[in-house]
Amino acid sequence: MAAEEPLELRVNGKALAVTMRTPGHDVELAHGFLLSEGVIGGLDDVSVARYCEGAGPDGRNTYNVLDVALAPGVAPPETGVERNFYTTSSCGVCGKAALDAVKLKTRFPPAADDCRITVDVLAALPDALRERQKVFASTGGLHAAGLFTADGDALVVREDVGRHNAVDKVLGWAVLNKRVPSAGTVLMVSGRASFELVQKAAMAGVPVLAAVSAPSSLAAELAEEQGVTLVGFLRGESMNVYAGAERVQG
Amino acid sequence: MAAEEPLELRVNGKALAVTMRTPGHDVELAHGFLLSEGVIGGLDDVSVARYCEGAGPDGRNTYNVLDVALAPGVAPPETGVERNFYTTSSCGVCGKAALDAVKLKTRFPPAADDCRITVDVLAALPDALRERQKVFASTGGLHAAGLFTADGDALVVREDVGRHNAVDKVLGWAVLNKRVPSAGTVLMVSGRASFELVQKAAMAGVPVLAAVSAPSSLAAELAEEQGVTLVGFLRGESMNVYAGAERVQG
Repeated sequence: MAAEEPLELRVNGKALAVTMRTPGHDVELAHGFLLSEGVIGGLDDVSVARYCEGAGPDGRNTYNVLDVALAPGVAPPETGVERNFYTTSSCGVCGKAALDAVKLKTRFPPAADDCRITVDVLAALPDALRERQKVFASTGGLHAAGLFTADGDALVVREDVGRHNAVDKVLGWAVLNKRVPSAGTVLMVSGRASFELVQKAAMAGVPVLAAVSAPSSLAAELAEEQGVTLVGFLRGESMNVYAGAERVQG
Repeated sequence: MAAEEPLELRVNGKALAVTMRTPGHDVELAHGFLLSEGVIGGLDDVSVARYCEGAGPDGRNTYNVLDVALAPGVAPPETGVERNFYTTSSCGVCGKAALDAVKLKTRFPPAADDCRITVDVLAALPDALRERQKVFASTGGLHAAGLFTADGDALVVREDVGRHNAVDKVLGWAVLNKRVPSAGTVLMVSGRASFELVQKAAMAGVPVLAAVSAPSSLAAELAEEQGVTLVGFLRGESMNVYAGAERVQG
């Protein structure tokens, strides 16, 4: 069975969020989460990321608390990061406010990225993702996310009990390897394409998001607005393009 | 495409959480969420649940803020509900703490529920869930959850872009129909069985949780500890029982 444990993320010593995740790649997870939330724009915004001391019943460190110290001059997040992302002072809580809030926070809007990707490359991504899953886990059914070049080469694949975590780990890898903004890349996910996953792609400057399953209406709206190419129901040669179709070539 | 919109949940006028959800059944969602978090134990703990005024760009109510007034004497949640569920003062953040925190909050531990369910009834649940999905949505790929009797009769099926929301809507239905604790029932979910889904079953007094995909290790531990029967990889006649096998009959 896949392991699942809580991870508490602290920023400058203050608790910011707790997520249930598959242990491992936690430093990536933290960087990807902070990038997605607009707290950091790249590796230079982080001073140190390290596990805190935290003893379990057996007295050993549980490695379930990670503290990130931001670089001097980088503003720590206000409490209620999540809430901030869906609300603006003008409109309160609604889909439009959520779209506007992302617009205010993106540092690398992918709209100008003129990369192109072929239908053949897209069609091969689900298998490429699954093959890597088989290598790294035999537990079955984990959520997976991968970052690929527009030529279909795998840069990184991560798995997690939480689908957002898998994407955060991938984008955190990009931060740590100074590949943000991730121009000319495709983020492939094993499940659905929700608003929050398009948000994560937009925050990292990823121009193409491809999903095995369906997108939501708000995900498609956000992709359109941010210039992210959104591909859904990607199964073999079959796929639907919901936004940014100009990047997809026959 | 399935609709997705943010919902802000307020308790006694104070913002508690924002979730991205499929609009509809929001009163159920609120009740199920508050039950899962241990804030309420049943319908009598809620005084009023209603949409707040909240105008979108077009001036119309967005129906994206729901305010729940608790009954007199019911303690409102502290801020950081999420964090409270994974931490105890003795151990900090770890899997053991998460298990202990649930133990402290369950009002209707399912351990004493002596219902029995046959393999045939279990085997029929995924199709029963999918059939109801086809009726209620044609958008493809939504997460689904259903509450069934131990005889396999469907009580309620709900779908949502978020898997936790689908379960909260189902359990909220149970609260609103005074079926909590939900003795003698099976909660069937379309995806994985995570710690948080077992937690929700335990908080509602649901004795059996069945999932199409894999459970996590911590989900199986929690199910064992709370006396919840946990069935995973339920696909046709094939299934694995990870906890509480005494309720499953050939």
